[in-house]
Amino acid sequence: MAGTALFAGATTACATPDSGKASGVDGPQLHWRMMVSWPKDLSIMYGGAQFVADRVKAMTGGRFTIDLHVEGELDTKDDLMTAVSKGFVECGHSSSDYYADKNAGLTFGSGAPFGLTAAEHASWLRFGGGMELISGLYDQFGIVYFPAGNTGAQMGGWFNKEINSTDDLKGLRMRIGGIGAEVMKTFGVTPVDVPYLKLADAIKSGQLDAAEFVAPFDDAELGLNKVAKFYYSPGWWQIGDQLDFIVNKKAFHDLPAEYQQIVESAAWEANQRVVAEYDAKNGNALTDLVKGGTQLREFPVDMMRTAFAVMDGIHVRESAKSADYKRVFESWNAFRWMVKKWHVFIESPVMRSNVFTDPPPLQ
Amino acid sequence: MAGTALFAGATTACATPDSGKASGVDGPQLHWRMMVSWPKDLSIMYGGAQFVADRVKAMTGGRFTIDLHVEGELDTKDDLMTAVSKGFVECGHSSSDYYADKNAGLTFGSGAPFGLTAAEHASWLRFGGGMELISGLYDQFGIVYFPAGNTGAQMGGWFNKEINSTDDLKGLRMRIGGIGAEVMKTFGVTPVDVPYLKLADAIKSGQLDAAEFVAPFDDAELGLNKVAKFYYSPGWWQIGDQLDFIVNKKAFHDLPAEYQQIVESAAWEANQRVVAEYDAKNGNALTDLVKGGTQLREFPVDMMRTAFAVMDGIHVRESAKSADYKRVFESWNAFRWMVKKWHVFIESPVMRSNVFTDPPPLQ
Repeated sequence: MAGTALFAGATTACATPDSGKASGVDGPQLHWRMMVSWPKDLSIMYGGAQFVADRVKAMTGGRFTIDLHVEGELDTKDDLMTAVSKGFVECGHSSSDYYADKNAGLTFGSGAPFGLTAAEHASWLRFGGGMELISGLYDQFGIVYFPAGNTGAQMGGWFNKEINSTDDLKGLRMRIGGIGAEVMKTFGVTPVDVPYLKLADAIKSGQLDAAEFVAPFDDAELGLNKVAKFYYSPGWWQIGDQLDFIVNKKAFHDLPAEYQQIVESAAWEANQRVVAEYDAKNGNALTDLVKGGTQLREFPVDMMRTAFAVMDGIHVRESAKSADYKRVFESWNAFRWMVKKWHVFIESPVMRSNVFTDPPPLQ
Repeated sequence: MAGTALFAGATTACATPDSGKASGVDGPQLHWRMMVSWPKDLSIMYGGAQFVADRVKAMTGGRFTIDLHVEGELDTKDDLMTAVSKGFVECGHSSSDYYADKNAGLTFGSGAPFGLTAAEHASWLRFGGGMELISGLYDQFGIVYFPAGNTGAQMGGWFNKEINSTDDLKGLRMRIGGIGAEVMKTFGVTPVDVPYLKLADAIKSGQLDAAEFVAPFDDAELGLNKVAKFYYSPGWWQIGDQLDFIVNKKAFHDLPAEYQQIVESAAWEANQRVVAEYDAKNGNALTDLVKGGTQLREFPVDMMRTAFAVMDGIHVRESAKSADYKRVFESWNAFRWMVKKWHVFIESPVMRSNVFTDPPPLQ
């Protein structure tokens, strides 16, 4: 759907390009390849990458085009970030924490557990020093970086039984990765890696007791609601997963200055657009799930408190191992407490403004 | 500060335009005038307008420039929207509810009380039908519309005494305007109009008992913390005030298609940027205010419930008077309940994730 809505809001104004007018752009013809970390069926994330390409093409009158290629489709064994770093492709759309093994500080490009919401992350990047820090890390690999999407807060996933305390987690086999998996292990959870297209079957067959994927829209596409009854909030390990548009530094430098600006603006525009699409489609999908019998639950507070404390320990450990991790964590952590004080006081109450009336109950 | 940070995040990559390369843009030289509703000292809102102009200039290699003029500075007696409609200026940066007397439906372009947060509003515009509706209203006046900023949730304002129930509001003289003022009257508040630069003096002299303006950053600039002790949350009458970039339709149609796209992308980029700046600066300002002795308070729940019910009545009344109001309200209201169910379940808990540890207390 992304890529078809470029003219939203100005349909009458510019759906039909006027002919006979002076062209606005007469720059060089350029063609780039973008490697994308998500398959097409993760339509909102993939759509964010497509949106950047579509907007760049439209702003340059078709002179600068970018084709998308899902990671794995192209003839390279390098991961996406390495392919961009080497210039095998000119650019990519991905999530920086996939590359934390290259530099631990990249964890915070995507966001860490109990972290920043999509809006808070954008604020940290633009006005809290985040852009400079994350750009500095990517620069070590010859990469120029722009934010280009955020999933918003993700869900805690699907469970085939209720979780009333951390004891209930013991022995569960759960599909969960990254730092979230590390924390879950402390509760006796066994992380199991299952390809996302096979998650529903794995729960149905009993290979898995639980699985986290993304949020209502993407989760329903996989049919997880048909195999597990209880849907938990929140996915404290992914409080907004930031997506990046990364560009080979030489390729970027070779662009005319106007094209550089056009790429930057298109990426930032996509940054808000992706979470806006998730908010709308997750909201509608949640309504449908509840109608279909899904039972909404919240993780118990003792689990959240313990997980938070475990995360604190991980930050201390990783900061001791990596100066870059420490430097980015300190900026991110200070911003977190500052902005959350503000949001706890104002944004969270107004977001819950329906508590002041009698809304249709959630369930 | 806006306009100087265009290259944030890619400083090393593009702070110095490379010379000797093919230019990316060779379109027509154009100069526009933008009328702006806010004075320069409301630096974040004004900065959002300046950002649009700066980004357009940079994306067109300096060929398309836009000068800003604060409303009242130019030789016209028309309001900003009329000046854009007539083509006296090509474009403007304003808030659509200022023009609700021209079409009542424009109320929802800015957002109504107990409404959508900045992120929720962007989601409604992009993926909930909002753009089509608001664009349709502006189109009646020969105007093309793009979102270009949001203040985020505003505060309930400064009071020189505590408000523990609606009874405590009776007889207060308060600086508050718009629908908020109408609702406050039902509590026995007398709305008083005082120019914003004189608000601090008016409270100090006893001419006012209370005043709402924007939020911590802008409020502190006015020195309101020096004349009133209690600072209330939330400003339920302005749960995110959407700012618009509006363009004369003929001027927009005369642009090359590439320039049209460039204007659209710059405006949408500003849309997230303005609220990101407010989030960062309000958070820091709130911290400073508390250190300086400001006492934070929340409005009592009985006031909120009553205000919500009064607003429901206003929506019914206005819907009966204006078919456009009714049509936009119905879309906005349905989206509100849908997205808030999702956010109450996921976004609000994660925003308050510091409740899972022992954060420094707010006060």
